[in-house]
Amino acid sequence: MNATLLVCTTCRAGQPTVKGQPVAGARLYSALASKPMPENLTIAPVECLSACGNGCAIALTAPGCWSYVYGRLSENDAAEILTGATAYAATPDGLVPWRQCSQIFRKQSLARLPPQER
Amino acid sequence: MNATLLVCTTCRAGQPTVKGQPVAGARLYSALASKPMPENLTIAPVECLSACGNGCAIALTAPGCWSYVYGRLSENDAAEILTGATAYAATPDGLVPWRQCSQIFRKQSLARLPPQER
Repeated sequence: MNATLLVCTTCRAGQPTVKGQPVAGARLYSALASKPMPENLTIAPVECLSACGNGCAIALTAPGCWSYVYGRLSENDAAEILTGATAYAATPDGLVPWRQCSQIFRKQSLARLPPQER
Repeated sequence: MNATLLVCTTCRAGQPTVKGQPVAGARLYSALASKPMPENLTIAPVECLSACGNGCAIALTAPGCWSYVYGRLSENDAAEILTGATAYAATPDGLVPWRQCSQIFRKQSLARLPPQER
């Protein structure tokens, strides 16, 4: 499937903003975007995933598939996020078997949503 | 639009299960399903919205619209949830203006997701 990795780029992750410095969500996006991405995975910035109390947040979504939102992330998690996103993109329905999920994907789920109706 | 109110019916909301008693999510679903529903809003049970640390959880979704997930709910919130879901279903895109949102919808958002691609 063709999956999208959405990254909330406006998230401050509970930190004060520093003039001229990118916020935590923007730093996470940069860290992810700088890494090699599988062909069937697209990264996209999004302004606010409404997970402000559990930022930084990302989401994985694909047409006709379950979507997942994860939180309490930082730029240091970029490699693990990409590994998990690659596993997600390799499924036909968005459902990665539990035993194949890494710590972040097991412990930091904020929500999931069934495929959106057409 | 035709919106769907998804209710996680497996949520225990951090409480121990009592044999023969419905779990908190099932009670919330019953409370919601017993109320009159606007024509353009359908209620649907779902097994696990992966918001277990913030249950009970519900989600609002509609084709081509933003989806929202809310948490830390109980059956006592049924009336307010339905008011908010009705406001959601009255929008063209899922975006309810902030000043029209009730406390739950302002304070208990777990996540939102942009419209899923086709």
